[in-house]
Amino acid sequence: MAVYTEVTDEALRAFLSDYALGELLAFRGIAEGVENSNYALKTEAGDFILTLYEKRVDRMELPYFLGLMEHMAVHGLACPTPVPARDGAALRELCGRPAAIVTFLPGVWPRRVRPEHCAPLGEALARMHRAGEGFPIQRPNALGPAGWAPLLDGCRARGDEVQPGLIAELDAALTGILAAWPAPDTLPRGHIHADLFPDNVFFLPDQDGKPRVSGLIDFYFACTDLYAYDVAICLNAWCFESDYSFNVTKARALLSAYESVRPMAQAERAALPVLGRGAALRFLLTRLYDWTHTPDGALVTRKDPLEYLRKLRFFVQAESPGALGL
Amino acid sequence: MAVYTEVTDEALRAFLSDYALGELLAFRGIAEGVENSNYALKTEAGDFILTLYEKRVDRMELPYFLGLMEHMAVHGLACPTPVPARDGAALRELCGRPAAIVTFLPGVWPRRVRPEHCAPLGEALARMHRAGEGFPIQRPNALGPAGWAPLLDGCRARGDEVQPGLIAELDAALTGILAAWPAPDTLPRGHIHADLFPDNVFFLPDQDGKPRVSGLIDFYFACTDLYAYDVAICLNAWCFESDYSFNVTKARALLSAYESVRPMAQAERAALPVLGRGAALRFLLTRLYDWTHTPDGALVTRKDPLEYLRKLRFFVQAESPGALGL
Repeated sequence: MAVYTEVTDEALRAFLSDYALGELLAFRGIAEGVENSNYALKTEAGDFILTLYEKRVDRMELPYFLGLMEHMAVHGLACPTPVPARDGAALRELCGRPAAIVTFLPGVWPRRVRPEHCAPLGEALARMHRAGEGFPIQRPNALGPAGWAPLLDGCRARGDEVQPGLIAELDAALTGILAAWPAPDTLPRGHIHADLFPDNVFFLPDQDGKPRVSGLIDFYFACTDLYAYDVAICLNAWCFESDYSFNVTKARALLSAYESVRPMAQAERAALPVLGRGAALRFLLTRLYDWTHTPDGALVTRKDPLEYLRKLRFFVQAESPGALGL
Repeated sequence: MAVYTEVTDEALRAFLSDYALGELLAFRGIAEGVENSNYALKTEAGDFILTLYEKRVDRMELPYFLGLMEHMAVHGLACPTPVPARDGAALRELCGRPAAIVTFLPGVWPRRVRPEHCAPLGEALARMHRAGEGFPIQRPNALGPAGWAPLLDGCRARGDEVQPGLIAELDAALTGILAAWPAPDTLPRGHIHADLFPDNVFFLPDQDGKPRVSGLIDFYFACTDLYAYDVAICLNAWCFESDYSFNVTKARALLSAYESVRPMAQAERAALPVLGRGAALRFLLTRLYDWTHTPDGALVTRKDPLEYLRKLRFFVQAESPGALGL
């Protein structure tokens, strides 16, 4: 559940009185999103999303996230746009937490990814990369390669309870990934989403009934990193079937549409297998960390870390970019 | 979290094609509600709520709930109205579950109840009772007096772990309540909501800024029972402070506004203390049952049964209706 903070109506009305959004008409908690409290807000001015940033988000980083969304929206990307209050500030405080109102985006995220979703996704990802150009704040990727060894250390004590031999396999994988990781400044970098899973991409049908992207959301893992790493995350998140087989048709559609907007350099294409390995390891490690640090018997849904072990193994054996659909 | 069933976009589109609601524009899970999967649905025709009925709801009872909402809405109550598909049927199936679309109601439920909420609540409760008159289906109250002894038996093994002596205290309270409970047909009966807690009542400010009720929701505990028992449930749910003290100002506002629409018979007023005890016991027992049947260490929010022990004790010592604000 994604509502951690209950907002009283008095506090909400006081908060909204700083905005020029007219009267409050409705306010409902949203079940999606896991890090923050999200509410669907309806006022006389329309539909919005109100987010309260909970403790896993560092408030020092909020200007980066909100500024990036604003910059990308101004540059034509369909993404949530922070709504400033009357004094011009979009980042405010509600119930003792940083809070912001962003625009509501139409669309539905795909519960089951079909090949037809992958070309519009790839195109939207490239457009996002283009739209972020020129945004001046940098944010290092805390969950990038330098963060993986500490994360793995945090899983060491109990990781093999999930699967015998898991930690040794991950140690070996990490060593291989770090050895093959592209050297700094050898690949194009910029602002990446870093978490563009299907629940962060809204679609609506076009006039022919084909899915088109109506918006990208949840920029709270965004950071400054390799564009091709963002592509590799999407290969992980969008191109495997439920039996963990890699669907090269989806990958081809994604990559080819991506390159129709932002052609990749030869070095980026060559790096995709190791970037895919790294992306699989990154999601495996955060899931494994959560898995081994959640009390036994808890009824919360813990995402299965072994899903990403299967994906990691795929990328380990996929030695050439051709195996990924390039 | 209140989304148990993930609806694929193909399934949703097929489902919506049976309705005359235009194109799908947005679809988001709602965090509120605990028994069913609820989604905020936006189409070209406006905003709606889509509910998938999960297994705790008996599908044989859905025609009662949907029919009652329809009847009450037709009779002027602001409550969700089932939206029929093109074939006229409102109760349909989606993802293997019974499903229905109902109208979206504006408003915000009060996270903190103020005395100004209680008069509009009382009036809305009485209007709901009036609006249900003439609805021909009956639904016995499964969580009424006849259900309390079996519920208590289900808590017997582990109830005292919550508080030593609890089961003995509840045995005595139940005996007392059943001995004093109004005989059948001595008090007016009809369709009651039976779960009119603050999160089921939406408010919007009127032109003077005072709260007015904009809608009542969640009729899935509705049943045929004593009207005054519904009043007693509201006294439990709306008139205690966070320190469990009874706020007689709130109770007076609630009762007086209720009676402005539906005056209570003398026998109803006289029965309010025992009905208040019964209502406290009912919520205590279901919470205690959930508490003692949820695995240790679970991270789900279990509602505290002892909150209702404090309320039960209040009603046990409140011998006269005067103590309740009558």
